[in-house]
Amino acid sequence: MRPPFDPTLYLVTDTQLCAPRPVADVVRAAVAGGVTAVQVRDKGASRRDLLALTRAVQEAVAEVPGVAVVVNDAVDVALLAAADGVHVGQEDLPATEVRALIGPRRLLGLSVSSPAEIAAALALPTGTLDLVGVSPVWGTPTKPDAGPALGLDGTRELAAAARAGGLTAVAIGGIGADRAAEVAATGVDGICVVSALCAAADPASAARKLRRELSRGVPAEVYR
Amino acid sequence: MRPPFDPTLYLVTDTQLCAPRPVADVVRAAVAGGVTAVQVRDKGASRRDLLALTRAVQEAVAEVPGVAVVVNDAVDVALLAAADGVHVGQEDLPATEVRALIGPRRLLGLSVSSPAEIAAALALPTGTLDLVGVSPVWGTPTKPDAGPALGLDGTRELAAAARAGGLTAVAIGGIGADRAAEVAATGVDGICVVSALCAAADPASAARKLRRELSRGVPAEVYR
Repeated sequence: MRPPFDPTLYLVTDTQLCAPRPVADVVRAAVAGGVTAVQVRDKGASRRDLLALTRAVQEAVAEVPGVAVVVNDAVDVALLAAADGVHVGQEDLPATEVRALIGPRRLLGLSVSSPAEIAAALALPTGTLDLVGVSPVWGTPTKPDAGPALGLDGTRELAAAARAGGLTAVAIGGIGADRAAEVAATGVDGICVVSALCAAADPASAARKLRRELSRGVPAEVYR
Repeated sequence: MRPPFDPTLYLVTDTQLCAPRPVADVVRAAVAGGVTAVQVRDKGASRRDLLALTRAVQEAVAEVPGVAVVVNDAVDVALLAAADGVHVGQEDLPATEVRALIGPRRLLGLSVSSPAEIAAALALPTGTLDLVGVSPVWGTPTKPDAGPALGLDGTRELAAAARAGGLTAVAIGGIGADRAAEVAATGVDGICVVSALCAAADPASAARKLRRELSRGVPAEVYR
C-alpha cells in the first residue's frame, strides 16, 4: 500500500529560485493555490540541511490533506523524515536499490528522458516504481544538464508507454502556465513545475492559474 | 554488538588523489601494507557512483579479515552496501538521526574539532557514537574547509576527553610518516591518513612505513 498521490500539479522545489523567501513559505502558498504534491530538491544542500528543509516542507503542507511530500535523491533523508516517497534520476541510486531501502509503503519516482530509459523503467520488477517523470518537455534553465527536449510528441510517446506499463507519468521541463494545457493534453497524469512556482511573485495565484490551464488541457469528463 | 574495529591505521579514500589508479587498487595495496580500517569518502560522487565505489572497496579488503569499511556521510549507501559503519561530519546528518537509521550493529564516527564539539559528542545518548575523528591535527590540502589546526596539544586534549567518555579517538589532518609517531604519542587510538596513502607511489610500502612509525610512537607494552 502506497500513500495516496495526486500528480496533477507537482511542485519541485528550488531553494535559490524561492530566495529570499524560505522554501516552506513558497510551498505553503503554492499548496493553498492548488499544488497537489511536492518534491523537495536541493542538490547543493548538505543532508543535514536537506532534512531540515524536508521537515519544514512537511509542516507547510500539513494543513492540506493528501499532499504528498517526496524527497529528491536523498533516501536517507526521506527515511528520517518519514516522507511519502523518493524521486531519483538516472545518475542517482538505482531504483531497485532505493526500493529495497524504502520498503513497499513509499512512493518511488524515476526520471526518464528517452524511449530506452522508459523501456528500462518498465523492465524493472513490478512494484519497484510508481511514477516516471518524463523530461525535459522543453529546455529549462533550472536543469541545464538535462538532455534534448522531447517536445509534445516525445512527451506523448513516453507518457503512453509509462501508462501502458501501469506507471503514473508526469511531465517536467520548462512548463509554465502558457503551455500547461498543451502538456496536459499529451495524456500525462500531471505536470511538474519548478520556476513557474518557485520564481513566482505570488505562488498561490500562479498555482491557481496553472490548475485552470491544466483543466483546459483535458476534456472535463476525464479530468480527475 | 558492533563489528570489530581496529583504528590503528585508518585510511580515508580520496578518488582524485588515487587517480589514475582505481581507489580499490590503492586500498588493496594499502591494506596489504597494514591499513586496519577504510573509510570511503567522495563528496563529489553521485550516490550511485559512491555505492559502486564502496562495493569495490569492500571487495578489495575482503582478503584481509577484520578490516572494517565505513562510508563517509552517505547513510543510504552504507545501508545498501551493508557497510560496517558510517562516519559523519558536523554538517552531515545529526549523529542521533544516523544511529536511528543504521541500527545498533554498525559503527558510527563523528568528526570533532574543538572542546565544544567533543563535549556535545559526549553528551549524546550512550551507544550513539563509537568513535570521534579529532581534526585537523595540522592543516591539510585535502580538506581546505577544515578549522584551525589543533596541534599535538589540542589533539591530546580532545583524545583524552573522548577516551574518558568511552569513545575511540582517531586523529586526522596532515599526518604523514614523518609525524605519525608524535601523533600516536598523544594517546589517540589510531591515525587517519588520506594523502599519505592515496598519493603514495607505493601505497603498500607507505602503509608499512606508517605502521612502523606508529609503533615507535607508543611504548611497546601498550601498543595494540
